[in-house]
Amino acid sequence: MAIKFAERMAKAEGSAIRELLKLTQRPEVISFAGGLPAPELFPVEEMKKVAVAVLDEQGQAAMQYSTTEGYKPLREAIADRMNKKLYCDVDADSILITNGSQQGLDFLGKVFLDKDDIVICESPSYLGALNAFKAYQPKFVEIPTDNDGMIMEELEKALQEHDNVKFIYVIPDFQNPSGRTWPIERRKKFMEIVNKYQIPVAEDNPYGELRFEGEISPSLKSMDPEGLVIFLGTFSKILCPGYRLGWMSAAPKLLEKFNICKQGADLQASTISQMEVAKFIEMFDLDAHVEAIKKVYGARRTLMLESMDKYFPEGVEFTRPDGGLFTWVTLPEGIDAGQLLKDVVLPKDVAYVAGEPFYPNGGNANHFRMNYSNMPEDRIVEGVKRLGEALTDAIKNLK
Amino acid sequence: MAIKFAERMAKAEGSAIRELLKLTQRPEVISFAGGLPAPELFPVEEMKKVAVAVLDEQGQAAMQYSTTEGYKPLREAIADRMNKKLYCDVDADSILITNGSQQGLDFLGKVFLDKDDIVICESPSYLGALNAFKAYQPKFVEIPTDNDGMIMEELEKALQEHDNVKFIYVIPDFQNPSGRTWPIERRKKFMEIVNKYQIPVAEDNPYGELRFEGEISPSLKSMDPEGLVIFLGTFSKILCPGYRLGWMSAAPKLLEKFNICKQGADLQASTISQMEVAKFIEMFDLDAHVEAIKKVYGARRTLMLESMDKYFPEGVEFTRPDGGLFTWVTLPEGIDAGQLLKDVVLPKDVAYVAGEPFYPNGGNANHFRMNYSNMPEDRIVEGVKRLGEALTDAIKNLK
Repeated sequence: MAIKFAERMAKAEGSAIRELLKLTQRPEVISFAGGLPAPELFPVEEMKKVAVAVLDEQGQAAMQYSTTEGYKPLREAIADRMNKKLYCDVDADSILITNGSQQGLDFLGKVFLDKDDIVICESPSYLGALNAFKAYQPKFVEIPTDNDGMIMEELEKALQEHDNVKFIYVIPDFQNPSGRTWPIERRKKFMEIVNKYQIPVAEDNPYGELRFEGEISPSLKSMDPEGLVIFLGTFSKILCPGYRLGWMSAAPKLLEKFNICKQGADLQASTISQMEVAKFIEMFDLDAHVEAIKKVYGARRTLMLESMDKYFPEGVEFTRPDGGLFTWVTLPEGIDAGQLLKDVVLPKDVAYVAGEPFYPNGGNANHFRMNYSNMPEDRIVEGVKRLGEALTDAIKNLK
Repeated sequence: MAIKFAERMAKAEGSAIRELLKLTQRPEVISFAGGLPAPELFPVEEMKKVAVAVLDEQGQAAMQYSTTEGYKPLREAIADRMNKKLYCDVDADSILITNGSQQGLDFLGKVFLDKDDIVICESPSYLGALNAFKAYQPKFVEIPTDNDGMIMEELEKALQEHDNVKFIYVIPDFQNPSGRTWPIERRKKFMEIVNKYQIPVAEDNPYGELRFEGEISPSLKSMDPEGLVIFLGTFSKILCPGYRLGWMSAAPKLLEKFNICKQGADLQASTISQMEVAKFIEMFDLDAHVEAIKKVYGARRTLMLESMDKYFPEGVEFTRPDGGLFTWVTLPEGIDAGQLLKDVVLPKDVAYVAGEPFYPNGGNANHFRMNYSNMPEDRIVEGVKRLGEALTDAIKNLK
């Protein structure tokens, strides 16, 4: 015999972003590539007080095993937040704590997907989710999008055409990678279709609270009387990612399956991290912290878009997000953003993420994703300027 | 359409132990059921100093995303420990940080198993591992064991008979559930066979350092020139389980697959937890802590075995472990330990884990597992006494 891996590993890929991030760790690189929060906003001093309080008050319990579903005060705080911010009506028992929302994505694949089953997603969609699902060997049906997100007529067509759709994966708020948000009417239409076809929906919502202008949109979960929506949330973007805490909220018949996954995957999330995040919410003001984040990211978003208006050549388009972390750039057909990154942009010590991996069935090489949360103001301007030069040359060469 | 789960979910089971633990959380229950460390030994005051030091020294980095493979100083400390304690020769680059060793078990299934592939394991074996593997729908071939662990003639027979064995899962040190340890000669014979057939081995070693008498056995990993052994380690039993930190150590061609799994599963382990455990090892004396654990568990082991000698009726056998957390009880054929637990033992406010789930192909209902690490001395004596009464009655009824 010889070492033989499972068939799924032939297609399993490391994340292009994680590999790229290694390249961009040189301090001179102006990186718009990651999805990293601004570390200068992390409440370090507060978390020190929190850590001491948790160990003082329940040190032994904090260091011991705990339940798979998660620490109840944390689940209560999450439910409360979902209800207040996203118009939901959920309670602690409908919440399972996961290691970031990435773990929820893996569980979706594990619970629903046999080989060749269909996942419907937006085109483009989040590559970390696509990679997680790919390990379970599905087929992807991409639904075209416009500036208001997924196009509902196309969704309904796809549902009529395919009968083994296991779930629909969407990011209706400040989508990764496009930065687009679905208006309320589109959300309503989506839920109508979903209820008609009785298809489970994975609503990935890491950025919903990070709206710089206007009101937070009601989540799909808040419009879900039939219990088809599986909500994925995370503390990574509203507090910090280093504790790796996220959650799933779903109807009991679904949540019990994810609970079984969690047992097999790692028994439970970190007891002490859960207690610490719950304690932070109790001792400090998470809302005020989110406001501070929004202020900084909003200003960086504005500056980046202004700089792109100024430095990017004609023929380059990009989205104008009202929140979240990303804008999505479309180049003229014929320019390969991946090639451009390698040949021209990285040598200028600038980085973005090329768009092709966000399309599960490939193609669409003329896009890239820009992050505005992680670089300070002066580097945003300088980076966009250098990028503008690269794009101007690329378009010239095209002609 | 209607909600349809993946085929694997039909067989996926919640852990019988985790469900049982809920029943045994009433304070009056004397529980020998879990595998919980003694919380009174957790270094709570030390971890408070550690948490403050980590946030003081590198607070922003501790709260940010970090690399998938894990925090380098922690991987260095782990490699150093494996080399010093278990006679290995590994370095930081051969280590991937996981969420407890349970996550490594899930990754083994994901990387190796297509439906109907074969996993070879000891009979009995750890049910948490079996459940993790079951999600990938393998078949199990159980190799009979004696008091020195897996019987090598039976292993070779199985390897001759089956040609789609993907890996062999073993716990050579203070096995869960049996408490048995493989002598050095058996380890050598095992590695000979493994090298001959070129089959990957998962060596699960959560308890190896917890040896109360004699010398720690060299790990299989230390006898592995061909890079077939995947070592799974954890801080759960030598420090505490609440931080959910474990690791895999394997040859590069294998480790890269597990790294891809980790990206899809949850991107990375908690940054701050990794820094804290590394800092604990730097600031305090983990060896001294392990000595303290061994002293307490060793005394409890001795007391439990003495009590079992005193109170258990003739016809009941049990193992006499030199370390670890468990002893394994064999009842006369015809007594169902699961039924007995429900009908007689739990009503006496005592708990153990019935043995059948430790056999992946079922059967063997006349066994149960006893844990001695988590109950204080007086409750061990009282619990064993009550259990002795239950067993005496059960044997009487059998006649």
